[in-house]
Amino acid sequence: MTHKLISSIHNPVVKHISLLKDKSRKRKEFGEFIIEGKRELSLAIKGGYEIETLLYYPDLFSASEADVLTAYNLESIEISKEVFQKLAYRDTTEGVIAIVKTKKHDLESLDFKNANPLILIAEAPEKPGNIGAILRTADAANVDAVIIANPKTDLYNPNIIRSSVGCVFTNQIVMGKTSEIIHVLREQHINIYCAALQASVEYHTQNFNKATAIVVGTEATGLSQEWLESATQNIVIPMKGQIDSMNVSVAAGILIFEAQRQRNFK
Amino acid sequence: MTHKLISSIHNPVVKHISLLKDKSRKRKEFGEFIIEGKRELSLAIKGGYEIETLLYYPDLFSASEADVLTAYNLESIEISKEVFQKLAYRDTTEGVIAIVKTKKHDLESLDFKNANPLILIAEAPEKPGNIGAILRTADAANVDAVIIANPKTDLYNPNIIRSSVGCVFTNQIVMGKTSEIIHVLREQHINIYCAALQASVEYHTQNFNKATAIVVGTEATGLSQEWLESATQNIVIPMKGQIDSMNVSVAAGILIFEAQRQRNFK
Repeated sequence: MTHKLISSIHNPVVKHISLLKDKSRKRKEFGEFIIEGKRELSLAIKGGYEIETLLYYPDLFSASEADVLTAYNLESIEISKEVFQKLAYRDTTEGVIAIVKTKKHDLESLDFKNANPLILIAEAPEKPGNIGAILRTADAANVDAVIIANPKTDLYNPNIIRSSVGCVFTNQIVMGKTSEIIHVLREQHINIYCAALQASVEYHTQNFNKATAIVVGTEATGLSQEWLESATQNIVIPMKGQIDSMNVSVAAGILIFEAQRQRNFK
Repeated sequence: MTHKLISSIHNPVVKHISLLKDKSRKRKEFGEFIIEGKRELSLAIKGGYEIETLLYYPDLFSASEADVLTAYNLESIEISKEVFQKLAYRDTTEGVIAIVKTKKHDLESLDFKNANPLILIAEAPEKPGNIGAILRTADAANVDAVIIANPKTDLYNPNIIRSSVGCVFTNQIVMGKTSEIIHVLREQHINIYCAALQASVEYHTQNFNKATAIVVGTEATGLSQEWLESATQNIVIPMKGQIDSMNVSVAAGILIFEAQRQRNFK
């Protein structure tokens, strides 16, 4: 194979990468996004993502490592220190940056291998850090799918990829409108448990062994009426403190792991 | 009462506040820190913190609101828009900024009202966002104490106060060295459950009804050997995903709420 080299930060590829990192609009327009870091990249490859271009800085990522990746039939380009420093996010980039094709996350593609799936749904989550933590929890609990209702951010935001430590590539993730999602869940006879800020039923009294969707809203306003009115059961995490306050990703973790505990983590 | 006014950003009080916000060293030197926001301020007052000086921007915080606070015998100073904009963090400051006395968080002050306390311990947590989320969980679960072992950041870091949404004031929080904390726990016959990255015993098989300390480490390295070797039992959260990865505040939430579930949230 031949190694190309980019040594100028004015190279159009460098500009293209900067745009894809910064602008959701550009990611949509080109159907491409940026992955930084070896672990993230290998999780994406494992998750079936198509790597279009791989850039590596040889002091941190050897040509032989790049050769291994070439087995995946992708173009690899060596970059200079200057280009690497312009593109890299702090020290976590590990010498490798890739341009990757986005996937579709249509509700129609939702597919369960399990007769009684466990699904985690987040409505309109906003903070990339919370979305990342939710995706990590979903991976750890090995849920059957994550559904994002009325999404506010695109999944390929670099801060989501980073805070999910690559779990954005390991989960089955679909997105859609709340009304459409509720329709699909009902059609498939999946019980809907909505985490409510106020509800008379405590989460741990419910049986999550059947097909179950656990739905969480935003910290500021909770779930929309549409969800609360469509629930098989609204549930609450009992809070006994001075202020009723819990991080949304922590709440999702508590509910999903209670479901997995009841299912004996199988 | 008389209202003082500060209209210049060059006023020494303004400079003092900026220093207290930015420098941990200055907070230690003066024994003072900064609170922004009405909720945070009222939680601090409720938590027995001594407010030294209150600054308010009258367009957002009325003099009558300031008068109420004067009942707490504190000096209140009106500030100009320019001063407010220099000092305020985004829109969450709600027109009020206070200089407040720090408290001691000595291990010796640890005090339980409950015969079988539930304690959450975090060793060397670093990210303010994670510490804030842990403190929110601790408040929601109404644990008897939060202990920070080998602290890396001071508790009055503005990002911790902000991400805890004031729960830094509602919990009993003490800090100390790991060795000293283990000594105290043993002396008081408190069972120590260490969240290990690898352990043969799953968390939900344990009985957390007796006096219980749940200990979590950092995401990068987990708990120190000292903790793991001093545990009554090392416990693991079963992870079934592609990568063993969970946010530390989510893990703490799952463990603490399993303990509270077993205790029937009493």
